[in-house]
Amino acid sequence: MSFIEVSADCDFPIQNLPYGVFSTKDNPQHRIGVAIGDKILDLSVIKHLFNGPVLNGSQEVFNKPVLNDFMALGYPAWKEARARLQELIGVNCDELKGNAELISRAFVPMVSATMHVPAKIGDYSDFYACIYHATNSGLMFRGKADPLPPNWKHLPAAHHARTSSIIVSGTPLRRPLGQIKPDLKKPPVLGPCTLLDIELEMAFFTGPRSKFGQPIPADKAHEYIFGMVIMNDWTARDIYGWERDPFGAFLGKSFATTISPWVVTMEALKPFTVPNMEQEPKPLPYLKHDDDYNFDIKLEVKLKADELDRPHTICRTNYKYVYWTAKQQLAHHTINGCNINPGDIISSGSISGPEEGSFGTMLELNWKGTKNIDLANGVTRKYVKDGDEIIITAHCQGQGFRVGFGDCSSKVLPAIQM
Amino acid sequence: MSFIEVSADCDFPIQNLPYGVFSTKDNPQHRIGVAIGDKILDLSVIKHLFNGPVLNGSQEVFNKPVLNDFMALGYPAWKEARARLQELIGVNCDELKGNAELISRAFVPMVSATMHVPAKIGDYSDFYACIYHATNSGLMFRGKADPLPPNWKHLPAAHHARTSSIIVSGTPLRRPLGQIKPDLKKPPVLGPCTLLDIELEMAFFTGPRSKFGQPIPADKAHEYIFGMVIMNDWTARDIYGWERDPFGAFLGKSFATTISPWVVTMEALKPFTVPNMEQEPKPLPYLKHDDDYNFDIKLEVKLKADELDRPHTICRTNYKYVYWTAKQQLAHHTINGCNINPGDIISSGSISGPEEGSFGTMLELNWKGTKNIDLANGVTRKYVKDGDEIIITAHCQGQGFRVGFGDCSSKVLPAIQM
Repeated sequence: MSFIEVSADCDFPIQNLPYGVFSTKDNPQHRIGVAIGDKILDLSVIKHLFNGPVLNGSQEVFNKPVLNDFMALGYPAWKEARARLQELIGVNCDELKGNAELISRAFVPMVSATMHVPAKIGDYSDFYACIYHATNSGLMFRGKADPLPPNWKHLPAAHHARTSSIIVSGTPLRRPLGQIKPDLKKPPVLGPCTLLDIELEMAFFTGPRSKFGQPIPADKAHEYIFGMVIMNDWTARDIYGWERDPFGAFLGKSFATTISPWVVTMEALKPFTVPNMEQEPKPLPYLKHDDDYNFDIKLEVKLKADELDRPHTICRTNYKYVYWTAKQQLAHHTINGCNINPGDIISSGSISGPEEGSFGTMLELNWKGTKNIDLANGVTRKYVKDGDEIIITAHCQGQGFRVGFGDCSSKVLPAIQM
Repeated sequence: MSFIEVSADCDFPIQNLPYGVFSTKDNPQHRIGVAIGDKILDLSVIKHLFNGPVLNGSQEVFNKPVLNDFMALGYPAWKEARARLQELIGVNCDELKGNAELISRAFVPMVSATMHVPAKIGDYSDFYACIYHATNSGLMFRGKADPLPPNWKHLPAAHHARTSSIIVSGTPLRRPLGQIKPDLKKPPVLGPCTLLDIELEMAFFTGPRSKFGQPIPADKAHEYIFGMVIMNDWTARDIYGWERDPFGAFLGKSFATTISPWVVTMEALKPFTVPNMEQEPKPLPYLKHDDDYNFDIKLEVKLKADELDRPHTICRTNYKYVYWTAKQQLAHHTINGCNINPGDIISSGSISGPEEGSFGTMLELNWKGTKNIDLANGVTRKYVKDGDEIIITAHCQGQGFRVGFGDCSSKVLPAIQM
């Protein structure tokens, strides 16, 4: 129990304690905070209270404008920080609760804060780890006989993606311009994307630096996984369609990627562990780990159409449909010696469930343009229109509480005039 | 003329003045230097001398461990810095030449310096901009009828690549492990790469921050292009071959990319401008620029085999065979609103010339394994062996001087034991 009041449907009870970076009007300095109820605990103000054996000499990590230095400290530091926070915010400890002056400086109302991208992101890798999404894509573009690429069940496929255009929830984006082919028989033209899609993903931030040339074994991978955020990996299907041969997505995705601001730690997700998906054929030994590392995270996508007065749900799905675990993703990513740094971000790829309505892209929801996605009052979508806002939420349901991620939302503005 | 003596075959005369980051045994601090002859001019020591109208308030950019802040200042600052350096190193100026005490602190013998990656690299994009290389790849893998992908002459294709494993010349790399298929009919196995290849590329660093959502017009792109380095984009052809469907290279390239340490500015390359390659069909207007932005840079790849006593040339080619100019690459990269940051790196992709012996990958030199690459004394290669060192050099030939890039070299160590 916390001395801060938290309602049962709030994403941020004492069981969660996600980290983010925020600023306020009266203090534009970016600083690290922890969400609790409708407040943010400013760690730069209470950094001196992290006096346990691991953190005692490293309190300055809480006085930085990004989470990277804290991420760099590694698993023992993350564990100690969480335990200390639960103690400080708990009802039985007076160090914070009993110090009215410190409380007045340490807590900021969430409504008065502006959130920022929580880390200086080094590299961004985008996996393709959800079997239902990969199967749907295959059914639409590869044919019914063999929807999955031949390598799909042998390795978690991925590609590198763009870090500079990762934006935090609340930041609008412009509809991208690009080469498209409205008439397939004619040369391409430059124009605004006509098939602007979302990709519902979850992504994790990596922790300490790994050594150049040194793989991370799957059973040690959790020591390098700090926590997770929701991700909307916006995709321009028409730009992508024309550019994709031979290298896949470049401009079709690099224009914007929205993430939720609060990094929910793996420690907070642990109680919501569910069995890994069955893997057949068995993966190679370097991809094996014995423990379950899959999570029951309920995901929902809402579309707020410009012409309707409230958002409408277009997808309900779950993180547990990710076939390749985050541990396997990281073990695969580093098997060739590729080194990771604190603040790298690694995403699952689009997450879809097995049935209609649980698909994480509009491409699947409209089944390659053959169906409308119904909102309300006869308003439908196939893809995202200018003025639409996409709001993704995620949470784990506990007994009388939830561990949630907050919103991952962005509004689409019209393309610029060239 | 400089008061520092520079021989005619030295890469670093007063006409060059490339920037790098170095440290020394007695001062492990990374600092910015300029190469001149066999010396490095330490800019942290002479930063107070940059007192022109643009740089006067920004001298601290020369006191940083990476070039990013200097890159961020933009074109007028780069121009002023170069002019001031040429003045200070020239024979007619006494500010440096006449100050023995300052000279003793400001110049470091190049042999005593350790070079570092010159910027904190934000994003790395790898183009596929050379027509001879793309044609060769197509001839080997797509067939003779239409070797180039349908979009190739309409847009400069590219993919995102990994920044964490970019290493500076002189850093060895380990042969990567990965999933390979020694028997195409059997499941993949984990093993050391058996087809380790090089890719001879040139890459440019970007300058000031561009705005999220705002394209950079082709005719303004030079304001965002700071300078160039040589790049060896190591490729594991067998790992790549198995993983490439559907997203192209991931682990087949992310294990290591070597760059040369000295960033040769576009101002230094200007006198070596040659006409752009003829482009037919004409590119869309957003890809057009009126001026020539192609460069006569002579490129050479040497392989130092473990069993031979000196390096042997395996390729001689030229940067001028790049079809899509760096300006076009940047205009295309940002047309969708993707923002660039100081210190992003953007590479040409492999560079090959029209004839045998001018191909920038061993895959082309051995023509998909059908030919040996002769070194000397009957020693041949198809791909890189453990213990081999690859040394790439690049220079522009002036009248009695050359503007060179120094070495881009790395030695291959055996794979680690799993």
